[in-house]
Amino acid sequence: MKTVVLVYSGGLDTSVAIPMMREDYGFERVVTVTVDVGQPADDITVAEEKARALGTEHYTVDAKDEFARDYCFRAVKANGDYQGYPLSTSIARPIIAEKAVEVAKLRERNLTRTEEIEYAKAKVVPISQSVDKIWSIDENLWGRSIEGGRLEEPDYAPPEEIFQWTVSPQAAPDNPTDVTISFKEGIPVAVDGKQFDPASLIGEVHRLAGANGVGRVDIMEDRMLGLKVRENYECPAAVVLIKAHKALEALVSTRKEIAFKNTVDQSWADLAYEGLWYDPLKEDLEAFIDRVNTRVTGDVAVRLYKGSATVIGRRSPLALYSEDLASFDSKTFDQSEMAGMVKVHGMQARMYRSVSGNKG
Amino acid sequence: MKTVVLVYSGGLDTSVAIPMMREDYGFERVVTVTVDVGQPADDITVAEEKARALGTEHYTVDAKDEFARDYCFRAVKANGDYQGYPLSTSIARPIIAEKAVEVAKLRERNLTRTEEIEYAKAKVVPISQSVDKIWSIDENLWGRSIEGGRLEEPDYAPPEEIFQWTVSPQAAPDNPTDVTISFKEGIPVAVDGKQFDPASLIGEVHRLAGANGVGRVDIMEDRMLGLKVRENYECPAAVVLIKAHKALEALVSTRKEIAFKNTVDQSWADLAYEGLWYDPLKEDLEAFIDRVNTRVTGDVAVRLYKGSATVIGRRSPLALYSEDLASFDSKTFDQSEMAGMVKVHGMQARMYRSVSGNKG
Amino acid sequence: MKTVVLVYSGGLDTSVAIPMMREDYGFERVVTVTVDVGQPADDITVAEEKARALGTEHYTVDAKDEFARDYCFRAVKANGDYQGYPLSTSIARPIIAEKAVEVAKLRERNLTRTEEIEYAKAKVVPISQSVDKIWSIDENLWGRSIEGGRLEEPDYAPPEEIFQWTVSPQAAPDNPTDVTISFKEGIPVAVDGKQFDPASLIGEVHRLAGANGVGRVDIMEDRMLGLKVRENYECPAAVVLIKAHKALEALVSTRKEIAFKNTVDQSWADLAYEGLWYDPLKEDLEAFIDRVNTRVTGDVAVRLYKGSATVIGRRSPLALYSEDLASFDSKTFDQSEMAGMVKVHGMQARMYRSVSGNKG
Amino acid sequence: MKTVVLVYSGGLDTSVAIPMMREDYGFERVVTVTVDVGQPADDITVAEEKARALGTEHYTVDAKDEFARDYCFRAVKANGDYQGYPLSTSIARPIIAEKAVEVAKLRERNLTRTEEIEYAKAKVVPISQSVDKIWSIDENLWGRSIEGGRLEEPDYAPPEEIFQWTVSPQAAPDNPTDVTISFKEGIPVAVDGKQFDPASLIGEVHRLAGANGVGRVDIMEDRMLGLKVRENYECPAAVVLIKAHKALEALVSTRKEIAFKNTVDQSWADLAYEGLWYDPLKEDLEAFIDRVNTRVTGDVAVRLYKGSATVIGRRSPLALYSEDLASFDSKTFDQSEMAGMVKVHGMQARMYRSVSGNKG
Repeated sequence: MKTVVLVYSGGLDTSVAIPMMREDYGFERVVTVTVDVGQPADDITVAEEKARALGTEHYTVDAKDEFARDYCFRAVKANGDYQGYPLSTSIARPIIAEKAVEVAKLRERNLTRTEEIEYAKAKVVPISQSVDKIWSIDENLWGRSIEGGRLEEPDYAPPEEIFQWTVSPQAAPDNPTDVTISFKEGIPVAVDGKQFDPASLIGEVHRLAGANGVGRVDIMEDRMLGLKVRENYECPAAVVLIKAHKALEALVSTRKEIAFKNTVDQSWADLAYEGLWYDPLKEDLEAFIDRVNTRVTGDVAVRLYKGSATVIGRRSPLALYSEDLASFDSKTFDQSEMAGMVKVHGMQARMYRSVSGNKG
Repeated sequence: MKTVVLVYSGGLDTSVAIPMMREDYGFERVVTVTVDVGQPADDITVAEEKARALGTEHYTVDAKDEFARDYCFRAVKANGDYQGYPLSTSIARPIIAEKAVEVAKLRERNLTRTEEIEYAKAKVVPISQSVDKIWSIDENLWGRSIEGGRLEEPDYAPPEEIFQWTVSPQAAPDNPTDVTISFKEGIPVAVDGKQFDPASLIGEVHRLAGANGVGRVDIMEDRMLGLKVRENYECPAAVVLIKAHKALEALVSTRKEIAFKNTVDQSWADLAYEGLWYDPLKEDLEAFIDRVNTRVTGDVAVRLYKGSATVIGRRSPLALYSEDLASFDSKTFDQSEMAGMVKVHGMQARMYRSVSGNKG
Repeated sequence: MKTVVLVYSGGLDTSVAIPMMREDYGFERVVTVTVDVGQPADDITVAEEKARALGTEHYTVDAKDEFARDYCFRAVKANGDYQGYPLSTSIARPIIAEKAVEVAKLRERNLTRTEEIEYAKAKVVPISQSVDKIWSIDENLWGRSIEGGRLEEPDYAPPEEIFQWTVSPQAAPDNPTDVTISFKEGIPVAVDGKQFDPASLIGEVHRLAGANGVGRVDIMEDRMLGLKVRENYECPAAVVLIKAHKALEALVSTRKEIAFKNTVDQSWADLAYEGLWYDPLKEDLEAFIDRVNTRVTGDVAVRLYKGSATVIGRRSPLALYSEDLASFDSKTFDQSEMAGMVKVHGMQARMYRSVSGNKG
Repeated sequence: MKTVVLVYSGGLDTSVAIPMMREDYGFERVVTVTVDVGQPADDITVAEEKARALGTEHYTVDAKDEFARDYCFRAVKANGDYQGYPLSTSIARPIIAEKAVEVAKLRERNLTRTEEIEYAKAKVVPISQSVDKIWSIDENLWGRSIEGGRLEEPDYAPPEEIFQWTVSPQAAPDNPTDVTISFKEGIPVAVDGKQFDPASLIGEVHRLAGANGVGRVDIMEDRMLGLKVRENYECPAAVVLIKAHKALEALVSTRKEIAFKNTVDQSWADLAYEGLWYDPLKEDLEAFIDRVNTRVTGDVAVRLYKGSATVIGRRSPLALYSEDLASFDSKTFDQSEMAGMVKVHGMQARMYRSVSGNKG
């Protein structure tokens, strides 16, 4: 039987595709798949209902844990950020594609088969057509993007109504919320001392940050094909976790590592943004990233307050700072030993001045 | 007459150096120079009084305008930032050294000679010894650093008392302040439509940002010799102006320019941090930076609110965004033309999978 | 009158396009342009004859001097090299396009109008169809590429017959030829003390290098769309001039400049290879490149011998080497001053070992 | 007993240190260690004899195999090259230091104790003082450096007498020698189909290359402290193996990998050159390097001829080139599909021209 597998959101575009596959392309069997990466539960249900109404063989794949662990936390290790955007939609696409392929091969366990296909056919369920939305929304555990209409204009202040995950900074509580994130080898494992599985940890940080107005991102973004678009995101967990992770790296990595990893992270983000999740370079970069993260273990205290997240403390057994280590500097040197340093520092610049007759 | 020129802050270290130069090194004439780069007026006066008391030939050089124009604004064009630190002390040192050299050559016009040397000798002015300060402070137009004591510990929350330029976010006004910065070729020229000379513009942004708790920087910083230190800064004008400048660059520069300038800016900051202001590479990088900035003209609206500065709008006659330009994308393509793109994108990654037998 | 301007090589593809433009696209006037960037004189003549035979209004634009000066020598300043390929065809395309546009606007002076259009129409000149060539050749002042057939295979040794500009290393003279290239601000200006205009200088170096078997390039090259192709080039002048230029940069630039310019040059080459000659980033990079080259003045001696070009001496008034400068090191230091240096060097690495308990 | 361990070459400097350690610093027991990393056997013997004569407890550590495998071949994987210099002395220092530390701990097996200490004391062996050498030589498996006298001058052609490992190109055979190097995961494992252990493989390539005048390196080099020095090296095996390795990488790595690894390799070489062999960044970079090298398996044919080494063929089961893969391009596309590509390519550059009114 000629079969097609469709990734199905329940939205208009993908709904229209179903009869098209049957009538225009002659597929006898249409399988639809909704991959749950943390979008609203309602969206999942609507997709199931519509699929039933349209008579497809429908599967819901719960990929939230895998998405949190292998995609979001990989982004944390890489400080995943493209021009200020925490890559939330970008990193969800590869797992959605992968899960759809697994359904096509029917060797995935974590599926929910929507059984009552015949029911729909008999009852002709009316598909509730959502009223025309002005905004185009994309949501998953890692973030929410809001696009469309005047939002694309660089100089248009986004209306408060587009935000659902974060309160307005002005509406946030008058007292700050301090939260401590614990990392183990670059992976966030606990919030305020309490251990969470990956998806739940993201949920917990999301809740705390969103309640304090933290996580809104408003940038000009260069699309892959070259167009600039003004973008609005809400990524409360991503913003806080990446900020904390970087602060911990600053404590345990050397200056040279921090500088070079900045270059590595940037290339990682470019690949993730461009959908090149399976590019061999990405795996090479991750070998570097994982190596650095073996030492990114410790706690970071973050203050959430009316829209801002500020690191107020960091601590690690592998810190390159300690009172003992500080003595590397102060105890080891006397001033006179610095004479050689001072002479050497900038020597080529002085030679250059000497040769070129320039001031300085 | 054997002469020495000392850069003089009025503090203990440099005060002690004066008799040392006379007695231990045999200088008959000791010239002291205080370069005004925006430190508190009191510090300037104290330096003058102490110099008089110690019987030196003292000069005060007002370098505020030059510092603002040729150093701070150069840092804006380069988005000057070293590990989160806006380089405030770093960029002041070269101008202080340069002014001291000019005094040594006595060909600088903008000096104030402190005349009453004899007076001090006669009256034996008691030099008020400031009570022991816990914190070591360094201040100029571009920022204020606070060091010392427990502040160096990565996990010690800085006490509110160390801050003088910024109110606590919680003490800041309950309503946001929106401010528009206008740039011309990368240089900030106006605030809310009103033109300012460089030093005054920095002062105006300082005032607005500081009043809203904006500009505190709290980081782990890698010193040049390799030691990590936790640092606290207040840089209200620097933080706001650089954020606005970057937002404008994001509107007028291409994706490739933004990515490459990030690398250039980072190298610029490293040189500035290391005191290599006259390194030839710095001048080479500035040729690049100036070229990009020829197009960084326009207005950026920034919302200041309880510790955070958020860009809420940007506009430029040279924006690579406009409704017309948006049509480069939407009008020019039909979907079918994208087929070739899609096939080409990631082709080497697919070849790699095909060759290495990996999944993907 | 509906007019089209065609860039015309005289080859089959572009010849076929002429009747197509008339018959299929309805152009009444077909203007053909051959831009002379140093391809064989015969090719120019053949293009003129065929254009005459096909009845087009034909122009030959002599762009050799401009190509040498503004394109090839710009490549020298940038050490223009993409994966080993000196970019010869890549940098010719923009000037060819530009000249064709100028012909379209008819405001170019340096043109030769091929007058006898009517003659061809009357006589019906038989267009000599060249016998099937196995190799596809592209030639200009800066290089010659040979493609096609088995040459694309990574493991096929290219037959001697494909080379025309360089003798085989084995057939080259038994004694080396030493040649001195003089540069002024990064531009080659003289060979063995004799001044040449740009195109002639390239010709002179071409002659000397080719006669010694120097300039063959045989690489795997990543095409823009992702395909790897094995490529063979002959670029005698490019290979020698870029090698000499780099050797001079190594004498006059600082270590930091050399390292950073390597990154800049690489990005420049990527843009040139991808045909992005007018990309704003390219102009930004050139601001950096030009700044560094202001000091690239001096002489480089190169030994040409049986396929290899070896720098054997370099000299510059702006060298960061001289016996006096060498004394920066030896005279200025005594060993004991180095103690501080030694302690500082690698300090973070030692801290890291101390913290992580690793050996080293 | 107060003991000191000295790394001992048998040269004047380290010989002088022995009585100094006893008389000036009061060490009762002086242990000397010569680490054999491939320097001439005579040097080892001389060191042993002199140590005996000077009455030290002397050990010779044969580290050739370990040096070849863990240092030289690591350099091959990283294409180890600093400004043209294959880092031969740089990468030997860390293993020499490590072996000396092992002797100090006396837990190394591969030692030869020089027994006859008493003999020397009795007989008072005259230590043959080598006649004053003009050149300062450093040799190991990976290369030979020659310094001193006029050789430091940038414009002095090195005399033929300084070379011992390579014949002059002119004296090399009149017929080329073709050699095939086989790599497995980035490591050279066979020469012309014959397997060798690491040290022997280096020896074999050394022999073939040196006999054809291949491996001389003559550069301006920026020393760590900022001084430029002209340097002469002979590194026949390093030059050929790294060239072959890069050619194989060009066949099996993607364009993005090649470009990024260039940056990684450069940082690796900087660390190696500066003696930061144990820097954590070096290990991070090696995680990346090793990941890329998992696919660097195959054969490279190199032609050695009168001073030059030219890659003439490359083959790999993991090549991103094959006739089938070539069809990714040719079979998959028709020309019309490229229309979209062409429109997109350089779009931002065109927008920029449109906005800024520039030509292009």
